[in-house]
Amino acid sequence: MKQGSLQLGVAPPANRGISILDLFLRLVAIFGTLASAIAMATTNQTLPFVSQFVRFRAKFNDLPSFTFFVVASSIVSVYLILSLALSILHIAKANAVNTRFLLLFLDTAAMGLLMAGSAAATAIVQLAHDGNNKVNWFAICQQYNDFCKRVSGSLIGSYAGVVVLILLILLSGVALSRR
Amino acid sequence: MKQGSLQLGVAPPANRGISILDLFLRLVAIFGTLASAIAMATTNQTLPFVSQFVRFRAKFNDLPSFTFFVVASSIVSVYLILSLALSILHIAKANAVNTRFLLLFLDTAAMGLLMAGSAAATAIVQLAHDGNNKVNWFAICQQYNDFCKRVSGSLIGSYAGVVVLILLILLSGVALSRR
Repeated sequence: MKQGSLQLGVAPPANRGISILDLFLRLVAIFGTLASAIAMATTNQTLPFVSQFVRFRAKFNDLPSFTFFVVASSIVSVYLILSLALSILHIAKANAVNTRFLLLFLDTAAMGLLMAGSAAATAIVQLAHDGNNKVNWFAICQQYNDFCKRVSGSLIGSYAGVVVLILLILLSGVALSRR
Repeated sequence: MKQGSLQLGVAPPANRGISILDLFLRLVAIFGTLASAIAMATTNQTLPFVSQFVRFRAKFNDLPSFTFFVVASSIVSVYLILSLALSILHIAKANAVNTRFLLLFLDTAAMGLLMAGSAAATAIVQLAHDGNNKVNWFAICQQYNDFCKRVSGSLIGSYAGVVVLILLILLSGVALSRR
């Protein structure tokens, strides 16, 4: 009888709990990735001195890796907002399979994209802080101190987003196995 | 009767096929990540001229992001080799659940780690090729041409590894849902 009711699509309560947790985690991830995308995109420091020809100004899009970071975390934020619809659907229909696979695939891709953006930006932030004397790349954080602080800080949100996406992938696995 | 036999642990044939595909994909991923780790770790170019004080020589560990790449892809290679044991176990016991969850979690973590290493190395390779005149980081690939080619090439294997790990995560989802 229990088997029969499962097959007829009545959700076991545990799966509904998983779907609610899934929705909550998505909201956390949206907060993290959106905040870090905005923090990076609005980073902008103009130094208080001006040479004869150049005004010293640092913006995120001076460095391609930071631009990639902003694009990647924006895409992931938009995806996560859209995915809320399916997440809410799963609370109502806890036995859904195809949409869970869709979310599993898209969550995995989103995690990869967000991790790639964060790691690329981290590599450049490390270089900006320490420089590299083997290849004569100088540290720029002495001059652009506020810029570096802001950029480093904005990475926190996106790494938090990566961790939450890993949890969402595992939750999808649990939900699929309990169907 | 069919339900009963499923519960008693007789694997449906489809799940066995998934387990064999899983094993095959792991072998592909090992090949890609191990090759790229070795290619990067053995990269070493000495320029044919010597100044009074310095011998111009480029190795992967001159740049922290390349070192991270080697460490990350080595860890993922070793993990993938160890995971073969569980993958073979799943061919024999296609209904296993806990070990599939373990692999789902570890595959996801490995994918994140490999992606982080690859993206960080890519950010530095891009800089080595193009330089960045806004912050006075000069392109080094004119001098260290072989070094740059080798380093860029070694990224291919690890990105292939990332793609295969994404497929493995999806396969785990399929196997868990068919249990």
